[in-house]
Formats: sequence, C-alpha cells, structure tokens
Amino acid sequence: MSVQIKPTYEPLNEVTVLEVVKALDFFEEAALSHLHVKEIGDGNLNLVFHIEDQASKKALIVKQALPYAKVVGESWPLTLDRARIESEALLKEAESVPHLVPKVYYSDRTLAVTVMEDLSDHLILRKGFIDGHTYPALAEDIGTFTAKTAFYSSDFYLHPFEKKEQVKRFSNPELCKITEDLVFTDPFFNHDTNDYPAELQSEVDKIWNDTELLREVSKLRFSFLSKAEILLHGDLHTGSIFVKENSTKVIDPEFAFYGPAGFDIAHFIANLALNYLSQNAHAKEPFNRESIQLYLLQTIEKSWDTFTETFTQLWNEKSTDPYAHVDGVLENFLQKTFQQAIGFAGCEIIRRTIGLAHVADLDTIQQKDVELFYKKKALELGSKLIKNQRNITNITELTDWIRGA
Amino acid sequence: MSVQIKPTYEPLNEVTVLEVVKALDFFEEAALSHLHVKEIGDGNLNLVFHIEDQASKKALIVKQALPYAKVVGESWPLTLDRARIESEALLKEAESVPHLVPKVYYSDRTLAVTVMEDLSDHLILRKGFIDGHTYPALAEDIGTFTAKTAFYSSDFYLHPFEKKEQVKRFSNPELCKITEDLVFTDPFFNHDTNDYPAELQSEVDKIWNDTELLREVSKLRFSFLSKAEILLHGDLHTGSIFVKENSTKVIDPEFAFYGPAGFDIAHFIANLALNYLSQNAHAKEPFNRESIQLYLLQTIEKSWDTFTETFTQLWNEKSTDPYAHVDGVLENFLQKTFQQAIGFAGCEIIRRTIGLAHVADLDTIQQKDVELFYKKKALELGSKLIKNQRNITNITELTDWIRGA
Repeated sequence: MSVQIKPTYEPLNEVTVLEVVKALDFFEEAALSHLHVKEIGDGNLNLVFHIEDQASKKALIVKQALPYAKVVGESWPLTLDRARIESEALLKEAESVPHLVPKVYYSDRTLAVTVMEDLSDHLILRKGFIDGHTYPALAEDIGTFTAKTAFYSSDFYLHPFEKKEQVKRFSNPELCKITEDLVFTDPFFNHDTNDYPAELQSEVDKIWNDTELLREVSKLRFSFLSKAEILLHGDLHTGSIFVKENSTKVIDPEFAFYGPAGFDIAHFIANLALNYLSQNAHAKEPFNRESIQLYLLQTIEKSWDTFTETFTQLWNEKSTDPYAHVDGVLENFLQKTFQQAIGFAGCEIIRRTIGLAHVADLDTIQQKDVELFYKKKALELGSKLIKNQRNITNITELTDWIRGA
Repeated sequence: MSVQIKPTYEPLNEVTVLEVVKALDFFEEAALSHLHVKEIGDGNLNLVFHIEDQASKKALIVKQALPYAKVVGESWPLTLDRARIESEALLKEAESVPHLVPKVYYSDRTLAVTVMEDLSDHLILRKGFIDGHTYPALAEDIGTFTAKTAFYSSDFYLHPFEKKEQVKRFSNPELCKITEDLVFTDPFFNHDTNDYPAELQSEVDKIWNDTELLREVSKLRFSFLSKAEILLHGDLHTGSIFVKENSTKVIDPEFAFYGPAGFDIAHFIANLALNYLSQNAHAKEPFNRESIQLYLLQTIEKSWDTFTETFTQLWNEKSTDPYAHVDGVLENFLQKTFQQAIGFAGCEIIRRTIGLAHVADLDTIQQKDVELFYKKKALELGSKLIKNQRNITNITELTDWIRGA
C-alpha cells in the first residue's frame, strides 16, 4: 500500500491513529465509525494501539516508534528508522517462516508505523514461563525460525549482490550500539549503567578482574561488530516471543541486523537458562519444579537440534555455495556457530543479572537471599560458558552445564 | 571541486579529456592550449590519460572507468561505481598514509573519472622485481600502509556509527564477485575460466580432490564474504604498487571493500613468494639470484613486522576499544589475522598459477620445463600454506616455508 497518511512525523493518539486504520482496507466500512482503540504499549520506546471492531472481533495492532528511548527514567533520542527495520525484518522473515511472525498489513516510514496482526490471544513467553506454563511447539518453532531466517539470508543461499544489498538495508547502527554497550561492554566494567545488589559486589569484581573472561568477551564483541553472516532478529529473548498452546510468534525485530550466525539462538537459550535457575524459587512444589526444569532443558536441546536439522536440510537441498558438498564444510560452520552461541549465551546471562536490563525471572524472586543465591549461580554459569566455548562440543553437554549450575 | 563537466557518461578521448582538465585549476592558463595528451591505459577496464605541460613538465593522470571489463577477449558489463570506490578509497587512505598513495585532484561520478597525481617516474613493482631490482623502503612502506589503513578503518578506532557508514559506502558487490570467483572458487574446481598448461593436470587434480584443502578454502572464502573488519585495498598485488628508489605508491583500489584484516598483506606476501620462485629462472647469475631472493624474504618479514609494530603502536595510543588494554586481546587479533593471511596467501599463489589471471613472474620464464617446474612448486607451496595456517605461528616460519619450496 502506498497511502501517505501524514506529511511529517507526529506521535499518534487514540484519535489520530484511526486515520491510519481508515486508510487501509481492513475493517468493514460500517465498523469504522465505532472502532475500539486502546494504547497498550509500555510507552518506553513505542506506542502500541490495539484497535478492534467489537462486533466482529476483528482487530489489529498499530505500533509506532517514538523518537526517543526511556529507560530507568532517563530519556535519549533514538532513530525512528527502527520502525522501518522492524517492518522490513518482519516481511523478510515472513518469506521463510510466515507462521512464526505477526502478519504486516501496512507500514509507513514517515509516521514510523507498522500495522500488524493482533496477537492478544497470545502471552509473552517470559510471563508464561514464570507462571509455570510449558509450550510443546516452542522448541521446534524457534529452531525452525532461527534456521530458516539464517539460511535464507546467508551467503550459502543468496547471490552475493542480493546479500550485500540486504546487509546495507539492515544496517542498524543505533540499535546495535545499545547491544554493544549493554551486552558486551558495560557489565564487564565498572559502568554506571550497571544495576545489581551490593551483596553481589565480590562476584562482580571477580568478573571484572578475570582476564581470560574479558579476552573471550572481547572476541565475541568483535564478532558482533564485524561478522555480517546472517540477518538476525537481534533481540531474541523470551520477552520477544508470543505464545499460546501450539502457536509461537516472534515479535519486535527492531534490533535486526546482519551479524554472527549463533547470536539469536544463543539469546533464546540464555533466557531459558535464566528461567531454569529461577524455577528453583518460583515453582510451587518439587514435582512441578522438576518437570518444568526438565522441559526447559529439553526445549534448549530440541531447539538446537531443530536448528541444525533444518539448516542441514536447507543446505543439502538449496545451497548455492560451490563448497556445499565438500565433506566437513557444513559441520565446521555448525560447530563454529554452536561454540560462539555458547559464548553469546554466557554474555546474555551475565548482562541480564548485573547490567541495565534485567529479567523478571530472577528479579521477581520473593526472598532476597534466594534471589541473590540464584543471581550468583547465573554469574557463575555465564562466566563458565564464555570460558568454555571450545570445550562444550554438543548440546547435551551444554544442558548438563546448566543442570549443574 | 564541484564542477559538473558532462551531464551524462561518455568515454573520453584525447580531445574531450581536455575539458575535464581545463575545468580544474592545475595547469597555468597559458599552458592549456598546448597540453600534451596520451592515452596510456591497456584499455581493458579503464582509460588512462597522461596530460602534460611539456614546458613546465607539470603533468597529471585522468583515469576513467569503462562500463565493461575485457579479459581474454571476452567483454562483460562492469559497474562504473568502481571509479567512485577508487577515488573515495584513495582519499580515505590519504587520511592516514598520504605519502603512500597518489594524490587525488578531482573526481566526477557522472564521468566515472579520477584526476590524480602523475607517477610516470615510478615503475610497476612486478616489472621492477622481474628485472632484478630491489627497493629498500618497500617493506616498511607496505607494512605501514596495511597497518594504518587497517587500524583507522576498524572498530578498534572508529565510532560504530562511522564504521557502519563506511561499510555501506564501500560495499562493492561487483568487484568482490570477481575476487570471490577468480580467487576463491574457480581455481579449486574444473571451471572454464581456469588457464594452465596440460602438463599441470595431475597437480591440478590433486588440488581439486584434496578435501582438507577445499574445506580450508571454503572457510577463507566465507571470511572474505562475511567479515567486515577493515577497509581493504582489495587487490594488493605487485601490479598495484608503483615504486622508485625510496618511494612507494599503492594504486588502483577499485576493489576496495570492508573485509578480513589479513587480506591485503597476504596478497602482497603471495606475490613476493611467486616472484621468489620465478627468480630461480630469471636472475642472471647465482650471486644475484641469492641476493634478490634474500631481499624478497627479508621484505616479507619486515613488511609483516612493520604491520604488527605499527598496528600495535596505534592500538596502544589510539584504540577506543574498551578491551584494548586487556592482556592478550591485541595478540589474539594479530595472531588470527596472521594465520588467516597465510591462508589467503595460499589461495592467491594457486589462483595466479592455474586461474584466469596469471603473473608475469612465472609466465615469462623462457624455458617451458623450467616454467612448469616452478609452477608445480607454486601449487605445492599454496596448498601447504592453506593447510598449515594454524601450524605456522610466526613470520620467519613462513619465510622458511617459502625458502623450502
């Protein structure tokens, strides 16, 4: 669609957002005069409007980027271009995994708006996990999502002209800088964005003074900055995944960029590991705890296995790489991707524990001493993963490490 | 300068090129009517006009890209954007190594023209080597060129916004595709661009059937395609270097792009290794041969040592990387760069022997059997380097391997 709704950017409100919707061909003509509009975003980075025809129950979401980010009260300017990146990434992902992302109905660069499928019947995965739910389709869906978006955006499949065009299109400096700082830098130095209880200081000092660890993190950071291997979601934690029984939708790819192949699945795994630790405190009784924790480890294993199986199948059937059928080439790539994913997962676990952006899994543990105990465990696990990237050679070894944490 | 000389692209000739020159402020007004113009390019990819005021001896070069490439009689379309890349790369290089590149006086995107310093008093290095000359400043100059252009374009120095902007600006799909095919693919398969005497078939078969070798080449090719580490010259063989006693000028960066850090110096080293082999046939008498060959090995060693020393100094003085002062981070980077450079050098040696584009060093050997002998040696050396990237840990080990070839 090429409707130009507004000549310049302005933040929408519950009235003006209707102009966007009315220009589309989504609701019945008769419904337009009495649509129900509600702003449901947390207002930190984006406005999110839920717009519904309550008679037919048809609904959609209008998401608009705000020209700033607001975190912990402070506000700084942030590019509106992330709305373009988000809608283009959703459309690109939909080419290979249409069932795993919200449908995009319309986007508008001037307004920094994406109009998309309503997923109100889904729940944010992190919340579902904390409440003790499990999702049988999740592992296969995330394995499929990460494998297909990886393969189809890579040099193993795309013509190099097309690949290089996509690299430019998804150049995402401002949002990458956030990750660079908050994931790969600040938590490993005494930086004022860090946020942790004073009781963790000696564990934090251990990290800051661990030269071997810092050396490995610097390599991971350099990979993040310089490897343009595949189109990543860029922020695939359990807050970026909507679920309901047998349905998974990966949302919010505003951090999308071309980066190292193991990055997305690493973030998924890290957030499951964090939830695994927190279940020791959250789960209501031992049997329930054991079964949820078992589910989490199986989900980690199955998501990785699905990733490799799906990627392997695509490679065998569709790779355009002249070396695709040389023995060991695929295996080398997968092994390297796996090892680096372990390192990325370690960074995510550490930064979610002592950096600026925490996870509710650990932060909502009621008893202070229990919270501290599992945060220490998280820091130990993160450090171990980063330092043992090359010693962990398969996914069950990884889940053993998480189980042992 | 923002003079618009022509509204659309047209190939210049010895008359119309004067319109470009007259619009500049280079020659005296009085000289403009009797400038001496000569087209001195080989006409394959570019027109090159030498324009001189014979009274004052002042001269300049007008280089214009042609909209096609002509190799071995065949002609295919090739982007004029390479003229923009070339002039912008020359200007970028001049920010850190002004004494090692020709000065750019003017460039025009419409005409695909770069007007630059005349270097007629210099000689192409490959020719100088074949004729048995040596150049005392060369090693330090190339070590400095590769180190400074690397450091100042890297994430170790640039703000990530600036770095990502440069990556987009130097996206160079068409010329990278030439390298991808001619260096990393075709020579390793039975491809019709390959060009070698029938007597080499059994050695060539050995390469094509060496799974371990192909696996390593595929990794190097993937690095070339996906690692955006530094701004590379992209084609730093001895035909891209102009020399005279104590002056070195790196020319023709039309292949410039963001790629893996060891790539440029690898190509320089590979071309010196090829000349080293050829000196067994070219050098007039044993003493001369020994001294030239010793010079070549010393030049390889000193160029690498200068690269690491210069890079280290810049790192210590100017790195903006938060991990710059963590023990081992620089050493890891240099070691990885070195090992990958050995692999890239191996690919260059092989493709210059059996691929489409040869080197005169080997091809001008008069006696057929001697030529074949050293071409076989080149193939062996190239293969060994590729397979032993991780076993060669320092530069004198590398020159030992070349000496032993």
